[in-house]
Amino acid sequence: MSRTAAGTDSGLLAPTWTGTPAEASTCDEAWLQAMLEVEAALARAQARIGMVPAAHAEVITKSAEADRLDLVALARASRAAANPVVALVPAFTALVATVDPAAAEHVHRGSTSQDVLDSAAMLVARRVLAGIDADLSRVAAALAALAEEHRDTLVAGRTLAQHAVPTTFGLKAAGWLQLVLDALARVRSVASAGLPASLGGAAGTLAAYGEHAKREGGLPLGGVELIAPFAEELGLAEPVLPWHTVRTPIADLGAVLSFVTGALGKFAVDVQTLSRTEIGEVTEPAAEGRGASSAMPQKRNPVLSTLIVSAARQVPAHAMVLAQSMVAEDERPAGAWHAEWQPLREALRLAGGAAFAAVELAEGLEVHPERMLANVALTRGAIVAERLAVALTPLVGKAKAKSLLTGAAFRAAAADVPLGDVLAEAPELAAADLAELLDPACYTGAAGPLVDRVLLRYRSYTGS
Amino acid sequence: MSRTAAGTDSGLLAPTWTGTPAEASTCDEAWLQAMLEVEAALARAQARIGMVPAAHAEVITKSAEADRLDLVALARASRAAANPVVALVPAFTALVATVDPAAAEHVHRGSTSQDVLDSAAMLVARRVLAGIDADLSRVAAALAALAEEHRDTLVAGRTLAQHAVPTTFGLKAAGWLQLVLDALARVRSVASAGLPASLGGAAGTLAAYGEHAKREGGLPLGGVELIAPFAEELGLAEPVLPWHTVRTPIADLGAVLSFVTGALGKFAVDVQTLSRTEIGEVTEPAAEGRGASSAMPQKRNPVLSTLIVSAARQVPAHAMVLAQSMVAEDERPAGAWHAEWQPLREALRLAGGAAFAAVELAEGLEVHPERMLANVALTRGAIVAERLAVALTPLVGKAKAKSLLTGAAFRAAAADVPLGDVLAEAPELAAADLAELLDPACYTGAAGPLVDRVLLRYRSYTGS
Amino acid sequence: MSRTAAGTDSGLLAPTWTGTPAEASTCDEAWLQAMLEVEAALARAQARIGMVPAAHAEVITKSAEADRLDLVALARASRAAANPVVALVPAFTALVATVDPAAAEHVHRGSTSQDVLDSAAMLVARRVLAGIDADLSRVAAALAALAEEHRDTLVAGRTLAQHAVPTTFGLKAAGWLQLVLDALARVRSVASAGLPASLGGAAGTLAAYGEHAKREGGLPLGGVELIAPFAEELGLAEPVLPWHTVRTPIADLGAVLSFVTGALGKFAVDVQTLSRTEIGEVTEPAAEGRGASSAMPQKRNPVLSTLIVSAARQVPAHAMVLAQSMVAEDERPAGAWHAEWQPLREALRLAGGAAFAAVELAEGLEVHPERMLANVALTRGAIVAERLAVALTPLVGKAKAKSLLTGAAFRAAAADVPLGDVLAEAPELAAADLAELLDPACYTGAAGPLVDRVLLRYRSYTGS
Amino acid sequence: MSRTAAGTDSGLLAPTWTGTPAEASTCDEAWLQAMLEVEAALARAQARIGMVPAAHAEVITKSAEADRLDLVALARASRAAANPVVALVPAFTALVATVDPAAAEHVHRGSTSQDVLDSAAMLVARRVLAGIDADLSRVAAALAALAEEHRDTLVAGRTLAQHAVPTTFGLKAAGWLQLVLDALARVRSVASAGLPASLGGAAGTLAAYGEHAKREGGLPLGGVELIAPFAEELGLAEPVLPWHTVRTPIADLGAVLSFVTGALGKFAVDVQTLSRTEIGEVTEPAAEGRGASSAMPQKRNPVLSTLIVSAARQVPAHAMVLAQSMVAEDERPAGAWHAEWQPLREALRLAGGAAFAAVELAEGLEVHPERMLANVALTRGAIVAERLAVALTPLVGKAKAKSLLTGAAFRAAAADVPLGDVLAEAPELAAADLAELLDPACYTGAAGPLVDRVLLRYRSYTGS
Repeated sequence: MSRTAAGTDSGLLAPTWTGTPAEASTCDEAWLQAMLEVEAALARAQARIGMVPAAHAEVITKSAEADRLDLVALARASRAAANPVVALVPAFTALVATVDPAAAEHVHRGSTSQDVLDSAAMLVARRVLAGIDADLSRVAAALAALAEEHRDTLVAGRTLAQHAVPTTFGLKAAGWLQLVLDALARVRSVASAGLPASLGGAAGTLAAYGEHAKREGGLPLGGVELIAPFAEELGLAEPVLPWHTVRTPIADLGAVLSFVTGALGKFAVDVQTLSRTEIGEVTEPAAEGRGASSAMPQKRNPVLSTLIVSAARQVPAHAMVLAQSMVAEDERPAGAWHAEWQPLREALRLAGGAAFAAVELAEGLEVHPERMLANVALTRGAIVAERLAVALTPLVGKAKAKSLLTGAAFRAAAADVPLGDVLAEAPELAAADLAELLDPACYTGAAGPLVDRVLLRYRSYTGS
Repeated sequence: MSRTAAGTDSGLLAPTWTGTPAEASTCDEAWLQAMLEVEAALARAQARIGMVPAAHAEVITKSAEADRLDLVALARASRAAANPVVALVPAFTALVATVDPAAAEHVHRGSTSQDVLDSAAMLVARRVLAGIDADLSRVAAALAALAEEHRDTLVAGRTLAQHAVPTTFGLKAAGWLQLVLDALARVRSVASAGLPASLGGAAGTLAAYGEHAKREGGLPLGGVELIAPFAEELGLAEPVLPWHTVRTPIADLGAVLSFVTGALGKFAVDVQTLSRTEIGEVTEPAAEGRGASSAMPQKRNPVLSTLIVSAARQVPAHAMVLAQSMVAEDERPAGAWHAEWQPLREALRLAGGAAFAAVELAEGLEVHPERMLANVALTRGAIVAERLAVALTPLVGKAKAKSLLTGAAFRAAAADVPLGDVLAEAPELAAADLAELLDPACYTGAAGPLVDRVLLRYRSYTGS
Repeated sequence: MSRTAAGTDSGLLAPTWTGTPAEASTCDEAWLQAMLEVEAALARAQARIGMVPAAHAEVITKSAEADRLDLVALARASRAAANPVVALVPAFTALVATVDPAAAEHVHRGSTSQDVLDSAAMLVARRVLAGIDADLSRVAAALAALAEEHRDTLVAGRTLAQHAVPTTFGLKAAGWLQLVLDALARVRSVASAGLPASLGGAAGTLAAYGEHAKREGGLPLGGVELIAPFAEELGLAEPVLPWHTVRTPIADLGAVLSFVTGALGKFAVDVQTLSRTEIGEVTEPAAEGRGASSAMPQKRNPVLSTLIVSAARQVPAHAMVLAQSMVAEDERPAGAWHAEWQPLREALRLAGGAAFAAVELAEGLEVHPERMLANVALTRGAIVAERLAVALTPLVGKAKAKSLLTGAAFRAAAADVPLGDVLAEAPELAAADLAELLDPACYTGAAGPLVDRVLLRYRSYTGS
Repeated sequence: MSRTAAGTDSGLLAPTWTGTPAEASTCDEAWLQAMLEVEAALARAQARIGMVPAAHAEVITKSAEADRLDLVALARASRAAANPVVALVPAFTALVATVDPAAAEHVHRGSTSQDVLDSAAMLVARRVLAGIDADLSRVAAALAALAEEHRDTLVAGRTLAQHAVPTTFGLKAAGWLQLVLDALARVRSVASAGLPASLGGAAGTLAAYGEHAKREGGLPLGGVELIAPFAEELGLAEPVLPWHTVRTPIADLGAVLSFVTGALGKFAVDVQTLSRTEIGEVTEPAAEGRGASSAMPQKRNPVLSTLIVSAARQVPAHAMVLAQSMVAEDERPAGAWHAEWQPLREALRLAGGAAFAAVELAEGLEVHPERMLANVALTRGAIVAERLAVALTPLVGKAKAKSLLTGAAFRAAAADVPLGDVLAEAPELAAADLAELLDPACYTGAAGPLVDRVLLRYRSYTGS
């Protein structure tokens, strides 16, 4: 058919999701298709309770193909009603009528824009969440492997951008894993508690559905009878109540997607830091052309983590708009609902794209233990000053131990000599085994057992 | 003792929480007290595993009283370290030393600022959540009563600010109840999954705890042994991992508090709309001086709902800052952690204050069914135009039915006559029982059964 | 040429901007074209200072046509570098080479992705701002006409959703106008202060530009010489400094766009309130199909204001992300820059679409003075209670006057009688001209002169 | 007098502003005092136009002392009216009455809560902005000195966390300076355009002011006459219109404060990066106890920059809430206004505290050019790979030059040999002066002249 023209939604300005499965699941075409699937599911559900002839529902279902409609014309028409469904209904009805005019009479029967658009949003969200679930599972597996392999790989613990005390790279990876498992749990909780179908009719009373059913004997519960089969046809959960202005599903999605990008963002920002030229402890996986600069031939930029971080900076703002939309006046609000669609789509895309990038990042991350070791040695002993303070405490008391070490650390730094050399002159430490005390590898505390705890959680989570 | 002076945190600019229990639970004094309780719990936990003499832990516990410290001086000193714990430790140590210098040696043993502040935050949050739980329970009970009483009270359903189709006030109340139950479920989920104690030491390895324990035989798991008793002493959950940069608990709190104010915000914004002078369908509960204006003697402003709405406009922004803090670099970030404290406190206060206001609003809401009925009649029949279109559909087809009704509705509005008068002239409707079709009370669809569904959920939720 | 496929950016979920000029100015194609214009302007600027042969610059300029490149393939390729320019450069170079291989050598000479993308963003922004300027000017003219026409049209002043004291519809319109003029001033300030060209090279030193120029005699200022002609070729302002991490232009744009939708949002939310079924004081302009519902034939929804309000709920969140991007580490940040593109585009589109909708809303708004008058009378005198309190004050004192009126207002409301009837019995008011005092038209204060002040500003602003 | 008790607003959780001048200017006491100053200014302005006896205005002015009122009781009472002014009026009236009952009759004459609270907010904001102006001026001076001193100090330019090309530390400082000058310009623009007094009466018509004036001959302009003297008494700007729902001043303040913390945040995040243990190019100024850790004696944390970064993460969220409050329905909104107060205060405090911290950071920043030089050498030549590609271009063409260099850079990195060694074997470069080409100091482009441009702006700005 002849089409109205519009630009391309290629993701030119959204490298986080361009070309990823999340893009395909959330483009205008996918939303339109989801709306048509809702119209079809509605007809089938109505057929199941006798409101619509089964044959008509079948015709409607077969006609529910987005590429047979002029998407752009529908989009343009959405301006007149402030939503895309009002124009979709006659267009789809006309399409069905080309096959069977009688069936066309049953399109969108008793329905309202919000039933269609909200249910479609849940279908779209379910698909993206499924992809995120799969991707996070792979990320978790890769991080678990990293945590296990590097359980005892020494690395500098850093706080407020300064070397603090030693830790292990395995524990860093275990922290990333913990967040990813938390994200996965939240994704599954939302997906399994069930993204609900939306069915309420014009003002949430289901009245027109019931009215239509009157000729067929009526619905004693006024339309409630339609909710379960409708949800079933869509594979969505059955809501207790129409949720036109009970926006729990939307607020929950925002919170979960924001959590996903936050969890991955922690991983990504650490990769960026650790791959700094001066630090060099990890490198992003190499790939043809990956991380190239338009000007600098030597460059290998941490682009996967950059894609993730850029998502983590945006999604919480979208989630906030969604949370604010809970304050939706009356039986359908004049603006709050309409403000949800783009932020929800963009949050889904960005989280999906970030999870997609995280798979490659986690599975291919290059780790450089020798650089970690070299960095641990950089401060020439100061990285275990806390330990020395603890060891000194029984000898001179807590306060004195700390001030003595503070002084020694600064003197060593100023003179650029090992802390051990300065301490060797301290009479209070004459009896101490300074070499052992100064060995960073002897001061990783519970890093190993903590890694084990997270791996245990991971294994019980995956059943592996 | 002599004190440094500072301003008063009276809530002068925060009427939502001033004077409420949430204020008392979140003021500087409460946070300081919580930090001291953490220090005491740490000493007791260490005593339980033999790291600290029990008698010393007892002295430390007894000394843990915020009003024996100069709060303001501690606050001022927090600038030097960018957190309040660094200065608290010597101050509290000195306080303990006035009782028992030996015990003072065991204050904050092996610990770090973040263990203290994060654990204290969880104590504070737990108290506020408990208050919110109690208040939301009362709100739910009151809304359930409203839903039940007004199950069949006719009211205009409004969409995009216009009358749409009839509904019942009970269904409106059921929607509010549904949101409050959703909020309650989320509050309890966070509270019962457990706000976790925070214990990690300087960089999350627990190393200094383990180091301190060496003289007493050591901790084979490097400090992990301390986590469970510490959490137990605080009545908090045991974390799998130190969460210095695994900010799940903070992000979750933000999301839940944002949900709470969003859920109550929906209730409140509806109260504001329904209590508009021209609508007059509900009135906020009266109280001496409540809702007064400084200028207009006749005014009775919907202040409780205003307190709630103002919270619902702010909390999502705080939650967003908390979500963004998940992207916390290294083993402790230089800013992201510090940016959590005020938004978390303010979100707790605002949600607590909003829930407190909602109790009074829900329990005392005055409902005016006669105004509802009068408003339903305002459009002189147009409010059931949807029903007429449905009824006409079998006679003239869907499209024609809708266009016929559209025309009739606009003609009736233009001529300011009842829709029924215009329709009485339509030959297509000659056989119809227009009086019945035009009766709004006959077109509330499933409103009643939907109310019953929510009440069923409410009762199963409360076990009543 | 053969193309990679992608979805359509039709605005299906963004009725605020679908089909508006802002959509066309901000779609992927428009951004790609803007990037090519930047590459062309760079070549011409380099030609002007002798770095590139003029003939080559001409070839490059003529080749700069977006539809000769595979946009979607470029978008897909952007993932590898986390920005779209890295892949654009060889693609465009190849395109130029098909005309003149020697000219192709001068494409993107000495440049960097950020110079191209940031300059392109300014071109895009300039076009959208020009449209907003024109639309706001029309909105201002229409609101000025409304303010003038209804300078003295009585309407209820409402505070906290309750009738307060009388005002005029002209003063309401003057408030909207004032905000639109403020918005216009900010749009012009940003546009005239100048959206700056971006030119800095790889790390903001312009070094590669200077290096390329060496064979042609060099640039004594190391590349600074190129900034002015480059900006001139683009019609953009000359920046003092490369702004790769000096994000003033981006933060300013965010703030201005947020202001625009906030200003229009105030207008729109008032239209929604005033067009409520029970209030009915204004109606949105009618148009074929405008405001239709998919279910309810009588509906005429305030869709223009809904489009605007939905924008006003989203743009501040985008502006916030842009403001946060100011905290951009190093010479180019790993995420903060990348997080700007989509929010900036969406903020531009939404503000542009909102301004477009506001033109039609302001120019066609239907005003119903008779409904305003009827509503003013609704409270039967209470709306002037403040005035009565003032009048009573000299007789009985301020406090007593207010409490007397409070009592009278509540008694009148309770008995459903005019306030005047209750007051007629008050001995304190025996001497007062109650009829005059109770006439709302006599209590509009400075409404008229205030309208005149805003109109004066408007006229001096437009020079009319 | 006896006082109601409340917690202390010490800034325990806000180290960014605790103990700073911004704290003192924004505490509850300061707001209350500002409200009283507004009441006093109103009385004096009314005296100037003959509405109030001058002697009474004087009594009112002399009584306007916050510490004579029970602040906490007022705060508690604010819950009943959802704002603090309704209770303040009778309390202040009673206070004045203790001096002169007749004067007390003229307190708050014709006024409304919003006139008082909004005008007070402007007084508070003006004071904080003055402090920010002074502090930013000092920051600018210090950064200008750094830029000048280090105009030619070589440092690695970093993009996406990787070494890119050389730059100078002077140019980094110039970028910080540029942002601070932009911030200063915006602060001054808001302050000088004028924070406006707020005067509108109950619904923005000034009617009660005019009504009160009737006995004294009346105000032909209905109250407009009062605006100018009122603004003058407060030292604030005269607004064109009452701005109860024309929230330009609030939105502007939010945008400016967000800009201030964003500008300083860029400076701070760079300091944090450059002071990383592995980088070590700058150190925050030392001070007794500054940057200490509760556990690690060697620590010297970058706390000043952390205070600033934590502010920069929060203020944009507050600004967003303020921007959203522009959508304020009717003549006074039921929630949007109330949601402004805390975010505005916190944004003022955080920006003020951040500017205060930035003074010390900029004035005392320790710079380590030798570490910068050592870091530039870290990649053994790769940092000038871009230059080599440029130099090769005329010999082998652009594309080949880049691919040749890419290969060489990766081979050199893999073999851990200087890039020069690999290149020395390339026949294409036989004729090149490799030593010169590889010298980073010869490839800083326009860094010096760009610094000069910013210093020129700085000097013209300060007139120095």
